[in-house]
Amino acid sequence: MMLEKIKSPADVKALDVHSLEALAAEMRTALIQKLSKTGGHAGPNLGFVDVTIALHYVFDSPKDKIVYDVSHQSYSHKMLTGRAEAFLDPEKYWSVTGYTEPCESEHDHFMVGHTSTSVSLALGLATARDLKGETGNVIAVIGGGSLSGGEAFEGLDNAGEYATNFIVVVNDNEMSIAENHGGLYKSLAELRATAGESGNNYFKALGFDYRYVERGNDIATLIEAFKAVKDSKRPVVVHVHTQKGKGLVWAEEDREGWHWAAPFDAATGVIHWGTGESYSEILAEYLLAKIKADPKVVVIHSAVPAGIGFNAGRRKMAGRQYIDVGIAEEHAVALASGLAKGGAKPIYSTHSTFIQRTYDQLSQDLCANNNPATLLVTCAGADGMNDTTHLCIFDIPLMSNIPNLVYLCPTCVEEMKVMADWAIDQTERPVAIRVPNGVTHRSDVFDKDYSRLNTYKVEHRGTRVAIFALGSFYDRGVAAALELKKAGVDATLVNPRFASGVDMALVEELACDHEVFVTLENGVAEGGFGQKIATACGTLGVKVLVRGLAKEFYDKVPFETLCENNRLSPRQVADDVLEALK
Amino acid sequence: MMLEKIKSPADVKALDVHSLEALAAEMRTALIQKLSKTGGHAGPNLGFVDVTIALHYVFDSPKDKIVYDVSHQSYSHKMLTGRAEAFLDPEKYWSVTGYTEPCESEHDHFMVGHTSTSVSLALGLATARDLKGETGNVIAVIGGGSLSGGEAFEGLDNAGEYATNFIVVVNDNEMSIAENHGGLYKSLAELRATAGESGNNYFKALGFDYRYVERGNDIATLIEAFKAVKDSKRPVVVHVHTQKGKGLVWAEEDREGWHWAAPFDAATGVIHWGTGESYSEILAEYLLAKIKADPKVVVIHSAVPAGIGFNAGRRKMAGRQYIDVGIAEEHAVALASGLAKGGAKPIYSTHSTFIQRTYDQLSQDLCANNNPATLLVTCAGADGMNDTTHLCIFDIPLMSNIPNLVYLCPTCVEEMKVMADWAIDQTERPVAIRVPNGVTHRSDVFDKDYSRLNTYKVEHRGTRVAIFALGSFYDRGVAAALELKKAGVDATLVNPRFASGVDMALVEELACDHEVFVTLENGVAEGGFGQKIATACGTLGVKVLVRGLAKEFYDKVPFETLCENNRLSPRQVADDVLEALK
Repeated sequence: MMLEKIKSPADVKALDVHSLEALAAEMRTALIQKLSKTGGHAGPNLGFVDVTIALHYVFDSPKDKIVYDVSHQSYSHKMLTGRAEAFLDPEKYWSVTGYTEPCESEHDHFMVGHTSTSVSLALGLATARDLKGETGNVIAVIGGGSLSGGEAFEGLDNAGEYATNFIVVVNDNEMSIAENHGGLYKSLAELRATAGESGNNYFKALGFDYRYVERGNDIATLIEAFKAVKDSKRPVVVHVHTQKGKGLVWAEEDREGWHWAAPFDAATGVIHWGTGESYSEILAEYLLAKIKADPKVVVIHSAVPAGIGFNAGRRKMAGRQYIDVGIAEEHAVALASGLAKGGAKPIYSTHSTFIQRTYDQLSQDLCANNNPATLLVTCAGADGMNDTTHLCIFDIPLMSNIPNLVYLCPTCVEEMKVMADWAIDQTERPVAIRVPNGVTHRSDVFDKDYSRLNTYKVEHRGTRVAIFALGSFYDRGVAAALELKKAGVDATLVNPRFASGVDMALVEELACDHEVFVTLENGVAEGGFGQKIATACGTLGVKVLVRGLAKEFYDKVPFETLCENNRLSPRQVADDVLEALK
Repeated sequence: MMLEKIKSPADVKALDVHSLEALAAEMRTALIQKLSKTGGHAGPNLGFVDVTIALHYVFDSPKDKIVYDVSHQSYSHKMLTGRAEAFLDPEKYWSVTGYTEPCESEHDHFMVGHTSTSVSLALGLATARDLKGETGNVIAVIGGGSLSGGEAFEGLDNAGEYATNFIVVVNDNEMSIAENHGGLYKSLAELRATAGESGNNYFKALGFDYRYVERGNDIATLIEAFKAVKDSKRPVVVHVHTQKGKGLVWAEEDREGWHWAAPFDAATGVIHWGTGESYSEILAEYLLAKIKADPKVVVIHSAVPAGIGFNAGRRKMAGRQYIDVGIAEEHAVALASGLAKGGAKPIYSTHSTFIQRTYDQLSQDLCANNNPATLLVTCAGADGMNDTTHLCIFDIPLMSNIPNLVYLCPTCVEEMKVMADWAIDQTERPVAIRVPNGVTHRSDVFDKDYSRLNTYKVEHRGTRVAIFALGSFYDRGVAAALELKKAGVDATLVNPRFASGVDMALVEELACDHEVFVTLENGVAEGGFGQKIATACGTLGVKVLVRGLAKEFYDKVPFETLCENNRLSPRQVADDVLEALK
């Protein structure tokens, strides 16, 4: 076996093309074996094995610097840069992250997970090289799907003006996560169809030299192409046409389904997705019903339709009432604002980690204009994604401090639906709803009207202690109340519902006959909900404990550990409250 | 005079081309007269008179909807849609805003001031039109300089896929605010040079039909071009070449200097800029000295170099150590991260209102990677710009809740310089510095090292009351202390320096022997600095008054009025503190 002997890129350079092809086969086998156990980005990594080998064969990493976009296609890169064991030895499967990570290797330059960043980051490295009078190639790798993100355009446009070495490898597998969207992709298709000769060339229009590689999974061809651009003194795009999922027949056939896959059976292609109810399925059925009931309802998504359960069948059912804008969150929010202004009922949904790509559009395009769009923020909280690169814990500070935006946090499925019903029907203002991850049902009766802003609901009236348990942490509030009950304290339990404002009347009322307030929120506490309550109580004489996560970039910390570390377990909350009561 | 009889676009349609030209001359005269008194966007508006007339002659606003990017070129539009008096009658000069404003007219669809939004917003209107089965043209107007913003690209790319009426008028005056930047502008120049025939066509590459108008200040030509695309069933770009500042010789000659001009003398071309020291001049000299001292220092700006006093002469002096990325804040931050990673010393500066265009890059590209870039946030606070569209009051909530980012708030020129010295020299972390607007000098001795994070400085040790007066509100804290002194209270005065964290040791120490804390910050209070202090004091038994602006989109509220309305005058602060002491 060759792969286990590859300790650095130098070992790749020592092989002939025939051996490199054999190495590629070994790498695919290792990838499939590992991914079938751990899950991961199957499609992008399988498709990119050959390009990675050719890059390391031609260029001299780390002197030559390769920067990967999203970096979810960097598994092969890790294999060739001293980390093969993490793909060969099941004991070491978790010794590397799923993204590039400077702590792991000098061959990794940035820790990233959001799309469309590689060109700008790499241009920074190239500019630093030039300022310091150093040499070497800088290579940005970017997938075709990531090109729709504005940051990638800004980077390409700026780079197109430089007269220096700067190489952009565009990995075109004809896909974003789902199918590609945008006029640009027609041009990419034309370039593929004309072997790169079409006059409609986006990259040339931005000032790049350009080279097309049709056989993007053929190592010899790739080596030739990369040799031709090595040490180029001009910005150049190498457009490589690859096969997403190559080497695993199921992934080649269903490229969207295998972009990211849970553990699977390689022989049968059965992916072991979790079972049971999921919020994405619930959302999908809910949204389809809305679409059917009103032709003015339009659901917008930005390239991750699985987040709302919109598989191909459902997308077809929704017809023109579903718009996938591609990876383009800024445009999605502005488009929603325009749709609302025009009298339609737009609903834009994206994951918490991606809503942060569009703060200015939320603020200026949408909220300053106060247009009645509905936003559904999915995968939110410490129980959302937990890679540093995809944390879902910053949306409350981000969104609850924008004027005019109402940010609602439902505690369960039923409450989410009545909140969404209200948000979609009303025409007064933009409303965002933070969708919980775990599927919780409550048999309560929920208010249908939220137009009296910042009205919290007292679910139980006790004494001495009041728990403000926001959204998906409502259950945690219930559990903390039970713990307090054991200690003889009958706590008041509040469902705040609104993350974006304070129910001042209730806070003042409760402050009169309670000694301690505790706020619970599923996200970073700084700038968030609880700090508003603490501030409102500044002169009221009641003690306030604000409980949320400390402001940090956590990496893969399991949810309950994170809660324990931030004194968020029901037992800890009760202990701290009892201490404060003393 | 024709202009005073124009009550709506119907009156424009009634004129022949010869009269339209005379109307244009009248409009330019009125513009110059008003702008010479009020100041404003001289260059963009003077250049766009003829296009505006032709648009209203050909299209039927408000059924046909015209959406202006930035909307700082919409003065002519206002003249032709019932608001001519605001440009003819000095008494009514302030009856309209400098941007489109739906409250003023049914011909204005959005209130915007940031660039690169018009395509996405207009596409929302077009999509709503189609969903509702309505007809009419939708026209997005965008300046060439705004094309470098990622949001504009995302919008164009998505629009390029539609098979429906959607017209984009690209106003190409060969300029951004300063000269244009980016590879794209070479293509625009090629298109101008070839009368639109060049193969490098960015718009076609994104799926648009395309039409070039060389004589973009000739009304008859423009009418013909717009008639040709009216009712188009496909997305189409009309690329018009205009003369920025047309009709005012000084503005034609110095297009950067007259983009926005203070009141001026039209006969001599003398602009009455304010006199005296300004922070932009101080920054310019400071940064040039840094550049000279270290070839690794690189100053990055995004299209508003005047914000740091980098006029053409200074840009030339800085050479390759100055990078203007164009309007591309996302790229600017990612580029800075890459530069820092590569061992350079990047300093990115932009106005507070524009830093909000790049939250995700601050968080992920820069701070998660903890690269030591320096950010200078200018024009920050309620005394920054005060149009709704350019508020500078949200940067503390935005930036102080991002992990790893140190946000320093100097109180004066001298402190700003030592903070910047430290930020640029250290290599541990990203540091942002909030540049005050008013030029304040203090004779204090300032710490040179800020690596012990979140260490506040007690400037005066008093009793009972502690004032935490952040950054540019330090003087306000001094004034409030004086007021308290009159009432017999000797308040402790703290210069917090760090907006991004709490000096817990100091807070606990002061809480022992003080009864009331008050925090003062020059921005929106929600999610900001004071709320961190209030939260830190949750169980300490000290009362906390958090003073900053309420969470609102203010429009043109004078600074001191805004302070009064938010109980931020020194007298009010003292009164509230005394009340809390009772």
